Amino acid sequence: MPIVQIDMLEGRSLEQKRALVEKVTDAITESVNCPKEAVTIIIREMATQNLGKAGKLKVDQK
Amino acid sequence: MPIVQIDMLEGRSLEQKRALVEKVTDAITESVNCPKEAVTIIIREMATQNLGKAGKLKVDQK
Amino acid sequence: MPIVQIDMLEGRSLEQKRALVEKVTDAITESVNCPKEAVTIIIREMATQNLGKAGKLKVDQK
Amino acid sequence: MPIVQIDMLEGRSLEQKRALVEKVTDAITESVNCPKEAVTIIIREMATQNLGKAGKLKVDQK
Amino acid sequence: MPIVQIDMLEGRSLEQKRALVEKVTDAITESVNCPKEAVTIIIREMATQNLGKAGKLKVDQK
Amino acid sequence: MPIVQIDMLEGRSLEQKRALVEKVTDAITESVNCPKEAVTIIIREMATQNLGKAGKLKVDQK
Repeated sequence: MPIVQIDMLEGRSLEQKRALVEKVTDAITESVNCPKEAVTIIIREMATQNLGKAGKLKVDQK
Repeated sequence: MPIVQIDMLEGRSLEQKRALVEKVTDAITESVNCPKEAVTIIIREMATQNLGKAGKLKVDQK
Repeated sequence: MPIVQIDMLEGRSLEQKRALVEKVTDAITESVNCPKEAVTIIIREMATQNLGKAGKLKVDQK
Repeated sequence: MPIVQIDMLEGRSLEQKRALVEKVTDAITESVNCPKEAVTIIIREMATQNLGKAGKLKVDQK
Repeated sequence: MPIVQIDMLEGRSLEQKRALVEKVTDAITESVNCPKEAVTIIIREMATQNLGKAGKLKVDQK
Repeated sequence: MPIVQIDMLEGRSLEQKRALVEKVTDAITESVNCPKEAVTIIIREMATQNLGKAGKLKVDQK
Protein backbone atom coordinates (compact mmCIF):
# COMPACT_ATOMS: atom_id res chain seq x y z
CA MET A 1 0.00 0.00 0.00
CA PRO A 2 2.52 2.61 -1.01
CA ILE A 3 1.38 6.19 -0.43
CA VAL A 4 3.32 8.72 -2.45
CA GLN A 5 3.47 12.47 -1.83
CA ILE A 6 5.03 14.58 -4.58
CA ASP A 7 5.82 18.23 -3.85
CA MET A 8 6.69 20.27 -6.93
CA LEU A 9 6.43 23.78 -8.32
CA GLU A 10 3.02 24.75 -9.64
CA GLY A 11 2.43 25.15 -13.35
CA ARG A 12 2.20 21.60 -14.64
CA SER A 13 -0.65 20.85 -17.05
CA LEU A 14 -3.37 18.27 -16.50
CA GLU A 15 -1.70 16.24 -19.23
CA GLN A 16 1.60 16.21 -17.35
CA LYS A 17 -0.08 15.20 -14.09
CA ARG A 18 -1.89 12.40 -15.90
CA ALA A 19 1.40 11.08 -17.23
CA LEU A 20 3.06 11.54 -13.84
CA VAL A 21 0.48 9.44 -11.99
CA GLU A 22 0.47 6.72 -14.65
CA LYS A 23 4.24 6.41 -14.92
CA VAL A 24 5.06 6.69 -11.22
CA THR A 25 2.44 4.04 -10.42
CA ASP A 26 3.98 1.69 -12.98
CA ALA A 27 7.47 2.41 -11.63
CA ILE A 28 6.35 1.42 -8.13
CA THR A 29 4.44 -1.73 -9.05
CA GLU A 30 7.39 -2.96 -11.13
CA SER A 31 9.97 -2.36 -8.43
CA VAL A 32 8.28 -3.34 -5.17
CA ASN A 33 5.84 -5.92 -6.40
CA CYS A 34 2.41 -4.60 -5.47
CA PRO A 35 -0.81 -4.24 -7.45
CA LYS A 36 -1.61 -0.96 -9.20
CA GLU A 37 -4.73 -0.57 -7.06
CA ALA A 38 -2.60 -0.29 -3.93
CA VAL A 39 -0.80 2.87 -5.07
CA THR A 40 -2.10 6.29 -3.99
CA ILE A 41 -0.40 9.49 -5.16
CA ILE A 42 -0.89 12.98 -3.76
CA ILE A 43 0.45 15.88 -5.84
CA ARG A 44 1.17 19.10 -3.95
CA GLU A 45 1.98 22.26 -5.86
CA MET A 46 4.04 25.13 -4.50
CA ALA A 47 4.36 28.74 -5.55
CA THR A 48 7.95 29.84 -6.18
CA GLN A 49 7.73 31.95 -3.03
CA ASN A 50 7.15 28.82 -0.97
CA LEU A 51 10.27 26.88 -1.95
CA GLY A 52 13.70 27.60 -0.52
CA LYS A 53 17.01 26.16 -1.67
CA ALA A 54 20.43 27.02 -0.25
CA GLY A 55 18.92 29.80 1.85
CA LYS A 56 17.11 31.60 -0.97
CA LEU A 57 13.52 31.52 -2.15
CA LYS A 58 13.05 30.09 -5.64
CA VAL A 59 11.27 33.31 -6.65
CA ASP A 60 14.50 35.21 -5.96
CA GLN A 61 16.75 32.88 -7.95
CA LYS A 62 17.56 33.30 -11.58
CA MET B 1 1.69 15.62 21.45
CA PRO B 2 0.07 13.94 18.50
CA ILE B 3 0.27 15.91 15.27
CA VAL B 4 -2.26 14.84 12.69
CA GLN B 5 -2.18 15.60 8.97
CA ILE B 6 -5.34 14.83 7.00
CA ASP B 7 -5.21 14.95 3.19
CA MET B 8 -8.61 14.83 1.52
CA LEU B 9 -10.44 16.07 -1.55
CA GLU B 10 -11.54 19.69 -1.43
CA GLY B 11 -15.18 20.57 -1.07
CA ARG B 12 -15.96 19.97 2.58
CA SER B 13 -17.94 22.68 4.38
CA LEU B 14 -16.76 24.59 7.42
CA GLU B 15 -19.34 22.63 9.41
CA GLN B 16 -17.81 19.33 8.30
CA LYS B 17 -14.29 20.49 9.16
CA ARG B 18 -15.50 21.63 12.58
CA ALA B 19 -16.96 18.18 13.24
CA LEU B 20 -13.84 16.51 11.85
CA VAL B 21 -11.49 18.33 14.21
CA GLU B 22 -13.72 17.80 17.23
CA LYS B 23 -14.33 14.09 16.65
CA VAL B 24 -10.79 13.17 15.59
CA THR B 25 -9.38 14.95 18.64
CA ASP B 26 -11.76 13.02 20.92
CA ALA B 27 -10.86 9.75 19.18
CA ILE B 28 -7.16 10.37 19.83
CA THR B 29 -7.46 11.46 23.46
CA GLU B 30 -9.61 8.42 24.23
CA SER B 31 -7.29 5.93 22.62
CA VAL B 32 -3.78 7.09 23.43
CA ASN B 33 -4.41 8.86 26.69
CA CYS B 34 -3.32 12.44 26.13
CA PRO B 35 -4.99 15.77 26.90
CA LYS B 36 -7.10 17.50 24.24
CA GLU B 37 -4.74 20.47 24.30
CA ALA B 38 -1.91 18.30 23.00
CA VAL B 39 -3.63 17.46 19.72
CA THR B 40 -2.91 19.52 16.59
CA ILE B 41 -4.67 18.79 13.30
CA ILE B 42 -3.72 20.06 9.86
CA ILE B 43 -6.30 19.65 7.08
CA ARG B 44 -4.97 19.66 3.52
CA GLU B 45 -7.36 19.82 0.61
CA MET B 46 -6.64 18.47 -2.86
CA ALA B 47 -8.18 19.18 -6.22
CA THR B 48 -9.31 16.03 -8.07
CA GLN B 49 -6.48 16.59 -10.53
CA ASN B 50 -3.96 16.22 -7.72
CA LEU B 51 -4.96 12.78 -6.46
CA GLY B 52 -4.00 9.57 -8.22
CA LYS B 53 -5.24 6.08 -7.47
CA ALA B 54 -4.31 2.91 -9.38
CA GLY B 55 -2.48 4.95 -12.00
CA LYS B 56 -5.33 7.33 -12.81
CA LEU B 57 -6.12 10.85 -11.67
CA LYS B 58 -9.33 11.16 -9.64
CA VAL B 59 -10.58 13.77 -12.12
CA ASP B 60 -10.48 11.11 -14.85
CA GLN B 61 -12.36 8.45 -12.87
CA LYS B 62 -16.06 8.02 -12.93
CA MET C 1 -10.09 9.11 0.27
CA PRO C 2 -8.74 10.72 3.41
CA ILE C 3 -5.13 9.85 4.17
CA VAL C 4 -4.17 10.47 7.78
CA GLN C 5 -0.65 10.76 9.15
CA ILE C 6 -0.31 10.72 12.94
CA ASP C 7 3.06 11.60 14.49
CA MET C 8 3.34 10.81 18.20
CA LEU C 9 5.86 9.76 20.82
CA GLU C 10 6.80 6.09 20.80
CA GLY C 11 5.64 3.79 23.55
CA ARG C 12 1.99 3.13 22.75
CA SER C 13 0.86 -0.49 22.97
CA LEU C 14 -0.62 -2.50 20.12
CA GLU C 15 -3.94 -2.26 21.95
CA GLN C 16 -3.77 1.54 21.95
CA LYS C 17 -2.90 1.67 18.25
CA ARG C 18 -5.79 -0.68 17.47
CA ALA C 19 -8.19 1.63 19.32
CA LEU C 20 -6.62 4.70 17.66
CA VAL C 21 -7.17 3.41 14.14
CA GLU C 22 -10.69 2.23 14.85
CA LYS C 23 -11.85 5.43 16.56
CA VAL C 24 -10.13 7.90 14.22
CA THR C 25 -11.58 6.09 11.20
CA ASP C 26 -15.07 6.31 12.72
CA ALA C 27 -14.55 9.99 13.54
CA ILE C 28 -13.67 10.72 9.92
CA THR C 29 -16.44 8.73 8.28
CA GLU C 30 -19.01 10.39 10.56
CA SER C 31 -17.82 13.90 9.92
CA VAL C 32 -16.91 14.03 6.23
CA ASN C 33 -19.22 11.41 4.89
CA CYS C 34 -17.00 8.77 3.29
CA PRO C 35 -16.91 4.98 3.57
CA LYS C 36 -14.65 3.32 6.13
CA GLU C 37 -12.76 1.58 3.32
CA ALA C 38 -11.56 4.94 2.00
CA VAL C 39 -9.64 5.86 5.16
CA THR C 40 -5.91 5.09 5.41
CA ILE C 41 -3.96 5.89 8.58
CA ILE C 42 -0.18 5.99 8.95
CA ILE C 43 1.18 6.05 12.52
CA ARG C 44 4.70 7.44 12.95
CA GLU C 45 6.47 7.10 16.27
CA MET C 46 9.18 9.44 17.51
CA ALA C 47 11.84 9.05 20.16
CA THR C 48 11.83 11.88 22.74
CA GLN C 49 15.10 13.10 21.26
CA ASN C 50 13.36 13.70 17.93
CA LEU C 51 10.61 16.04 19.11
CA GLY C 52 11.20 19.70 19.87
CA LYS C 53 8.79 22.13 21.50
CA ALA C 54 9.49 25.77 22.36
CA GLY C 55 13.14 25.35 21.42
CA LYS C 56 13.84 22.33 23.63
CA LEU C 57 13.97 18.60 22.91
CA LYS C 58 11.28 16.58 24.68
CA VAL C 59 14.02 14.40 26.20
CA ASP C 60 15.36 17.49 28.00
CA GLN C 61 12.00 18.59 29.40
CA LYS C 62 10.66 17.51 32.74
CA MET D 1 20.47 16.71 2.67
CA PRO D 2 17.97 18.02 5.18
CA ILE D 3 14.51 18.53 3.76
CA VAL D 4 12.37 20.86 5.82
CA GLN D 5 8.59 21.21 5.65
CA ILE D 6 7.08 24.16 7.48
CA ASP D 7 3.29 24.31 7.93
CA MET D 8 2.01 27.68 9.15
CA LEU D 9 -1.02 29.94 8.90
CA GLU D 10 -1.29 31.92 5.69
CA GLY D 11 -0.69 35.65 5.69
CA ARG D 12 3.07 36.00 5.87
CA SER D 13 4.66 38.49 3.48
CA LEU D 14 7.29 37.68 0.88
CA GLU D 15 9.75 39.54 3.07
CA GLN D 16 8.98 37.26 6.03
CA LYS D 17 9.31 34.11 3.93
CA ARG D 18 12.64 35.36 2.57
CA ALA D 19 13.91 35.84 6.13
CA LEU D 20 12.47 32.49 7.20
CA VAL D 21 14.30 30.55 4.50
CA GLU D 22 17.57 32.38 5.07
CA LYS D 23 17.58 32.04 8.85
CA VAL D 24 16.30 28.45 9.05
CA THR D 25 18.93 27.37 6.51
CA ASP D 26 21.66 29.02 8.57
CA ALA D 27 20.31 27.41 11.76
CA ILE D 28 20.51 23.97 10.16
CA THR D 29 23.97 24.31 8.60
CA GLU D 30 25.35 25.57 11.92
CA SER D 31 23.87 22.77 13.99
CA VAL D 32 24.18 19.65 11.88
CA ASN D 33 27.20 20.50 9.82
CA CYS D 34 26.05 20.43 6.22
CA PRO D 35 26.50 22.84 3.33
CA LYS D 36 23.85 25.48 2.63
CA GLU D 37 23.27 23.96 -0.81
CA ALA D 38 22.01 20.76 0.78
CA VAL D 39 19.07 22.41 2.54
CA THR D 40 15.63 22.44 0.88
CA ILE D 41 12.67 24.16 2.55
CA ILE D 42 9.00 23.78 1.63
CA ILE D 43 6.58 26.34 3.11
CA ARG D 44 2.94 25.27 3.32
CA GLU D 45 0.29 27.80 4.21
CA MET D 46 -3.02 26.95 5.87
CA ALA D 47 -6.29 28.85 6.10
CA THR D 48 -7.56 29.23 9.68
CA GLN D 49 -10.33 26.79 8.84
CA ASN D 50 -7.77 24.10 8.13
CA LEU D 51 -5.95 24.10 11.47
CA GLY D 52 -7.34 22.47 14.59
CA LYS D 53 -6.01 22.72 18.12
CA ALA D 54 -7.53 21.11 21.22
CA GLY D 55 -10.58 20.03 19.23
CA LYS D 56 -11.43 23.46 17.79
CA LEU D 57 -10.71 25.05 14.43
CA LYS D 58 -8.43 28.09 14.59
CA VAL D 59 -11.11 30.13 12.80
CA ASP D 60 -13.44 29.51 15.78
CA GLN D 61 -10.92 30.52 18.45
CA LYS D 62 -10.51 33.96 19.81
CA MET E 1 12.66 20.17 -7.83
CA PRO E 2 10.21 17.43 -7.11
CA ILE E 3 10.48 15.97 -3.61
CA VAL E 4 8.91 12.56 -3.27
CA GLN E 5 7.94 10.83 -0.03
CA ILE E 6 7.02 7.15 -0.30
CA ASP E 7 5.45 5.44 2.72
CA MET E 8 5.29 1.66 2.45
CA LEU E 9 5.39 -1.47 4.59
CA GLU E 10 8.85 -2.53 5.73
CA GLY E 11 10.48 -5.59 4.30
CA ARG E 12 11.70 -4.50 0.87
CA SER E 13 15.25 -5.47 -0.06
CA LEU E 14 18.04 -3.07 -0.94
CA GLU E 15 17.69 -4.30 -4.52
CA GLN E 16 14.02 -3.34 -4.59
CA LYS E 17 14.70 0.11 -3.15
CA ARG E 18 17.45 0.64 -5.72
CA ALA E 19 15.01 -0.20 -8.52
CA LEU E 20 12.30 1.95 -6.91
CA VAL E 21 14.47 5.07 -6.80
CA GLU E 22 15.78 4.58 -10.33
CA LYS E 23 12.38 3.92 -11.93
CA VAL E 24 10.40 6.55 -10.01
CA THR E 25 13.03 9.17 -10.86
CA ASP E 26 12.80 8.26 -14.56
CA ALA E 27 9.00 8.35 -14.39
CA ILE E 28 9.09 11.88 -12.99
CA THR E 29 11.69 13.32 -15.34
CA GLU E 30 9.80 11.92 -18.34
CA SER E 31 6.44 13.27 -17.29
CA VAL E 32 7.12 16.70 -15.82
CA ASN E 33 10.21 17.64 -17.72
CA CYS E 34 12.91 18.16 -15.11
CA PRO E 35 16.50 16.93 -14.83
CA LYS E 36 17.24 13.73 -12.89
CA GLU E 37 19.42 15.72 -10.49
CA ALA E 38 16.39 17.67 -9.30
CA VAL E 39 14.54 14.62 -7.97
CA THR E 40 14.85 13.66 -4.28
CA ILE E 41 13.10 10.59 -2.91
CA ILE E 42 12.55 9.72 0.75
CA ILE E 43 11.48 6.15 1.53
CA ARG E 44 9.68 5.61 4.83
CA GLU E 45 9.02 2.11 6.07
CA MET E 46 6.17 1.15 8.40
CA ALA E 47 5.62 -1.85 10.62
CA THR E 48 2.28 -3.59 10.02
CA GLN E 49 1.14 -2.31 13.40
CA ASN E 50 1.54 1.27 12.18
CA LEU E 51 -0.73 1.13 9.14
CA GLY E 52 -4.50 1.26 9.38
CA LYS E 53 -7.01 0.66 6.60
CA ALA E 54 -10.79 0.68 6.92
CA GLY E 55 -10.52 0.97 10.70
CA LYS E 56 -8.22 -2.01 11.21
CA LEU E 57 -4.48 -2.30 11.69
CA LYS E 58 -2.68 -4.15 8.88
CA VAL E 59 -1.22 -6.54 11.48
CA ASP E 60 -4.78 -7.65 12.32
CA GLN E 61 -5.85 -8.23 8.72
CA LYS E 62 -5.48 -11.50 6.92
CA MET F 1 1.70 27.67 15.19
CA PRO F 2 4.44 26.61 12.82
CA ILE F 3 4.95 22.85 12.64
CA VAL F 4 8.32 21.86 11.23
CA GLN F 5 9.29 18.45 9.87
CA ILE F 6 12.99 17.88 9.23
CA ASP F 7 14.05 14.76 7.32
CA MET F 8 17.79 14.07 7.43
CA LEU F 9 20.27 11.20 7.37
CA GLU F 10 20.66 9.35 10.67
CA GLY F 11 23.81 9.70 12.70
CA ARG F 12 23.47 13.09 14.38
CA SER F 13 24.30 13.24 18.08
CA LEU F 14 21.92 14.32 20.82
CA GLU F 15 24.03 17.46 21.11
CA GLN F 16 23.48 18.29 17.44
CA LYS F 17 19.72 17.72 17.69
CA ARG F 18 19.58 19.93 20.77
CA ALA F 19 21.31 22.73 18.85
CA LEU F 20 19.11 22.12 15.80
CA VAL F 21 15.86 22.52 17.72
CA GLU F 22 17.06 25.58 19.60
CA LYS F 23 18.44 27.42 16.56
CA VAL F 24 15.63 26.54 14.14
CA THR F 25 13.04 27.66 16.71
CA ASP F 26 14.86 31.00 17.12
CA ALA F 27 15.11 31.39 13.33
CA ILE F 28 11.35 30.95 13.00
CA THR F 29 10.27 33.22 15.85
CA GLU F 30 12.57 35.97 14.53
CA SER F 31 11.33 35.77 10.97
CA VAL F 32 7.60 35.16 11.20
CA ASN F 33 6.83 36.80 14.50
CA CYS F 34 5.42 34.08 16.71
CA PRO F 35 6.19 32.99 20.28
CA LYS F 36 8.73 30.22 20.91
CA GLU F 37 6.00 28.12 22.55
CA ALA F 38 4.13 27.92 19.26
CA VAL F 39 6.93 26.11 17.41
CA THR F 40 6.90 22.29 17.20
CA ILE F 41 9.73 20.42 15.44
CA ILE F 42 9.70 16.78 14.37
CA ILE F 43 13.07 15.26 13.40
CA ARG F 44 12.94 12.20 11.14
CA GLU F 45 16.08 10.21 10.50
CA MET F 46 16.71 8.13 7.39
CA ALA F 47 19.12 5.31 6.68
CA THR F 48 21.28 5.88 3.58
CA GLN F 49 19.32 3.15 1.84
CA ASN F 50 16.13 5.19 2.22
CA LEU F 51 17.24 8.37 0.47
CA GLY F 52 17.42 8.70 -3.29
CA LYS F 53 18.93 11.55 -5.28
CA ALA F 54 19.21 11.77 -9.07
CA GLY F 55 17.97 8.20 -9.40
CA LYS F 56 20.50 6.62 -7.05
CA LEU F 57 20.30 5.57 -3.41
CA LYS F 58 22.59 7.53 -1.09
CA VAL F 59 24.12 4.24 0.08
CA ASP F 60 25.35 3.63 -3.49
CA GLN F 61 26.89 7.07 -3.95
CA LYS F 62 30.46 7.87 -3.11
